[in-house]
Amino acid sequence: MTDMIIRGGSILTMDGTIIDDGVVAVDNGLIAYAGKDTGEKADRVMNAKGCAVMPGIINAHTHLSMTVLRGLADGLPYGEWIKKIQSEEARLTPSGIRAGAYLGMLEMIKSGTTSFADMYIHMDEIARAVEETGMRAALGYGMIEGQNEDADSKLRSRERFAREWNGKADGRITTMYAPHSAASCSKEFLIRVKELAARDRSRIHIHVLETEHELQLMKKRYGMCSVNFLNSIGLLGPGTLAAHCIWLSDDDIEILRKNNVNVTHCPASNTNLGAGIAPVPAMLGRGINVALGTDGAASAGSLDMWKEMRTALYLHRLKDPRSIPASKVLEMATVNGARALGIRAGMLKPGYLADIIIVDLKKPQFISPDQVSALVHGASGCDVKTTIVNGEVLMEDYRVTKMDEGKIIGDARDAMRSIAE
Amino acid sequence: MTDMIIRGGSILTMDGTIIDDGVVAVDNGLIAYAGKDTGEKADRVMNAKGCAVMPGIINAHTHLSMTVLRGLADGLPYGEWIKKIQSEEARLTPSGIRAGAYLGMLEMIKSGTTSFADMYIHMDEIARAVEETGMRAALGYGMIEGQNEDADSKLRSRERFAREWNGKADGRITTMYAPHSAASCSKEFLIRVKELAARDRSRIHIHVLETEHELQLMKKRYGMCSVNFLNSIGLLGPGTLAAHCIWLSDDDIEILRKNNVNVTHCPASNTNLGAGIAPVPAMLGRGINVALGTDGAASAGSLDMWKEMRTALYLHRLKDPRSIPASKVLEMATVNGARALGIRAGMLKPGYLADIIIVDLKKPQFISPDQVSALVHGASGCDVKTTIVNGEVLMEDYRVTKMDEGKIIGDARDAMRSIAE
Repeated sequence: MTDMIIRGGSILTMDGTIIDDGVVAVDNGLIAYAGKDTGEKADRVMNAKGCAVMPGIINAHTHLSMTVLRGLADGLPYGEWIKKIQSEEARLTPSGIRAGAYLGMLEMIKSGTTSFADMYIHMDEIARAVEETGMRAALGYGMIEGQNEDADSKLRSRERFAREWNGKADGRITTMYAPHSAASCSKEFLIRVKELAARDRSRIHIHVLETEHELQLMKKRYGMCSVNFLNSIGLLGPGTLAAHCIWLSDDDIEILRKNNVNVTHCPASNTNLGAGIAPVPAMLGRGINVALGTDGAASAGSLDMWKEMRTALYLHRLKDPRSIPASKVLEMATVNGARALGIRAGMLKPGYLADIIIVDLKKPQFISPDQVSALVHGASGCDVKTTIVNGEVLMEDYRVTKMDEGKIIGDARDAMRSIAE
Repeated sequence: MTDMIIRGGSILTMDGTIIDDGVVAVDNGLIAYAGKDTGEKADRVMNAKGCAVMPGIINAHTHLSMTVLRGLADGLPYGEWIKKIQSEEARLTPSGIRAGAYLGMLEMIKSGTTSFADMYIHMDEIARAVEETGMRAALGYGMIEGQNEDADSKLRSRERFAREWNGKADGRITTMYAPHSAASCSKEFLIRVKELAARDRSRIHIHVLETEHELQLMKKRYGMCSVNFLNSIGLLGPGTLAAHCIWLSDDDIEILRKNNVNVTHCPASNTNLGAGIAPVPAMLGRGINVALGTDGAASAGSLDMWKEMRTALYLHRLKDPRSIPASKVLEMATVNGARALGIRAGMLKPGYLADIIIVDLKKPQFISPDQVSALVHGASGCDVKTTIVNGEVLMEDYRVTKMDEGKIIGDARDAMRSIAE
């Protein structure tokens, strides 16, 4: 018999169909069925009447623990922001990183994010936290060459992390190799990373052309931009997740396309820091898999992916309102994000991971003949009432089930106080 | 004795101070006190522990009943959008307008908006609805010359509306004269409107340079843009509320400044329709009173003013992250909006109108050393738990007190169905 059935809701499969008054059946952490209600029975039945039932949202680029750096450098352009943040980051302890990770995951679970791709430091703390919270994550231990330790030592520790944690937590954790960017690592280092990733069949998570400064630096150093450079050393491929991708030429877009690179678009962070507008409609138009992410809370403010969806919608419609339908933005946050992380999620289909959220549609802003458009325009994290990952209910009717909210918030405040002192 | 006390919250007076664990006292529809807790007593005490207590938000430009046109024309540029919407609007009946007004006010009360400036048709329906819901509004019966009736008849009906409703509903309703724009009314008509407004000591609500098309049309017709034109006929002044103000030259900004014109910025609608980016930091820098508004739900998606604040923040930080602090955006939504509507609100100060909201800060995205920045970046309508207008509680602990939500949503759905048929 099925473990759980979600009944009565409007099912957005993200696979081309919306089923009114449908049913989603979950068995053994996977979706067993999503379609018309045919009277299935189950151990547990959830009532989704008046709600949308959809795949959990995927945040395809973040630095989770930066939640404890929130508000320290607001209203600064990228160059000054990064200096200020890095000086605060230097004071982060493993316990601060841990507190930031829990705070971030509390926010994500409450706002309907079920998976995320993270790149930061002290990643074992984050991995342990993911294991405990029940979320799904693709974790990369960030590498800036020359920072804190020598290249050999750094590669060994990242390799150890990647191998130790891949597949852990019932498969909810996957690992990636995460060289910070083409500008912050040498060619030799990047080639070694590429070889490790190939040997381990791991994906690679890297920042690409977030700033004009990086473009200029790469041209000066190598006579070509980051995309060309990474291509020249064979680091671009279907296993690459390139975050930001703002300062691209048309040729760069073609290179990304040819290599089936995944791109994560972070509109809130990009606009907030004055970094620029990524050519997302152009990339989508060429068939590139563009996902959505928040980046860190220190530049994005919140980890609410609905805010991210809305910002993407407005930003690209500024130039051409026809260039980005609401349905496309919702795909970026689900289908495309899953593809970027290499996970069988982002759709409600038999055999897919049971990462599901329930959104309360009984609110004035959702009264519309176009449900998808109403969601993208009008939903916020606090409209999500239930969050399920791997068939496990992490939040039900707005109550998180496994996390001690008071403790998490208290620990985060303590961490922020330590940083301030 | 005081009618009501709100105790225990973090008071954002918007008058330069934040008072932790403070008290706001309300008496006879006005704020009696806002400051440190000194043990005041009252008939009614509200607990705002862990919450922010702040002035209600002011939506300084909307077309409220367009909520029933939501989702009909998403993803179209302004020119095509307006054609599609106008053909649907022609099918709106007074009962549809009424249903749209109630739906819009339900959304506003639930998201912390206490006052709004509206411009539409069948305004008596809207005025009656405002009277019943308890909200505060500045209502203008829109005028497009030559549409439906002749100029004399139109001016008479708008004059009747303005005089009949001004000051009604315990003073919660004020009226304005609302010529649609300098392009949709003749010079003679606009001069007559100006004279009526002057005689009645009414404010004027008008769209100004929302599109490049209007700029070109005005140059062709009059040899000058709308700002110059309106100035030449004496329609600009401290009682003028100019919505959008996108296609301005530097000289236009100077004219607006000299005449103390109020401007309403509608970033979500402007970006969603590809209309353009209003020069808000430049206007604020010259001391122009720039408020915030959603425009209609058919172009803005939702009437959530937190979304509007966030969109303004990101849009202008794209060019220069230093140009628009989070605190400035919060002022736009409160202090500046009140000034634009000509009401003594937008701040928590003795003698000011008791339009107050309580926002639940016990959420992960608000954990930050910078409370104002965290609010602007991370708040959504559903974080507002209590909404008070004129000292009357319209929503308490997320429950609206005076509105039948089910009926309002049902009526709105019926209206949408009628339009679809």
